[in-house]
Amino acid sequence: MAVLRTLIGEALRATRLEQDRTLREVSGAARVSLGYLSEVERGQKEASSELLASICRALGVRLSDVLRDVSETLAAVEPQPAPITVVPPLEPAVAPAEGVPALAPARAAADVVAAA
Amino acid sequence: MAVLRTLIGEALRATRLEQDRTLREVSGAARVSLGYLSEVERGQKEASSELLASICRALGVRLSDVLRDVSETLAAVEPQPAPITVVPPLEPAVAPAEGVPALAPARAAADVVAAA
Repeated sequence: MAVLRTLIGEALRATRLEQDRTLREVSGAARVSLGYLSEVERGQKEASSELLASICRALGVRLSDVLRDVSETLAAVEPQPAPITVVPPLEPAVAPAEGVPALAPARAAADVVAAA
Repeated sequence: MAVLRTLIGEALRATRLEQDRTLREVSGAARVSLGYLSEVERGQKEASSELLASICRALGVRLSDVLRDVSETLAAVEPQPAPITVVPPLEPAVAPAEGVPALAPARAAADVVAAA
């Protein structure tokens, strides 16, 4: 299974190489250490949201564009989700609003919906 | 500026609420603590790639679909990237073609381009 950080790292690296720029240049522009950027590119470190934004700024690309590309790459290999197995809740799924008396147990309400 | 983890958290939370499921149910299915999932949903914790995949599995959605939605939300608010400021390299960015003598230092060639 493709790991998200690997795909993000590959996308960032591909963008940098398309620009003929070195790790040193981009890490300097993004104000991260060269080693850290290298690890992010190789999918060995999970980049924080701020760091991702900073690297994208340094590369002159939009994070949203990178994410869209990554989502497309991931979609090509990601299987359809398995059906959800929902364990019947022991507690009401939705608590009554404050000050509103719970006239009927929420569980009973859920049963009505399920039976409808 | 919208932070990526906030958008991802909001997307996961919206998906869970659409399914009328509690934090307890989904955190149990995803094998993460309830408190951690809650922090991820509120954009207070950066979820690892594995954790994101696990939460998506628990929700029965594909991570690639979540990412695509998030990229679209981000694209609506993210400004166009600023032009890249590339520091002139000290080494030649492009080596002369094989067999072509480098008559002038690459740095001088870069200056010519800059002055053109």
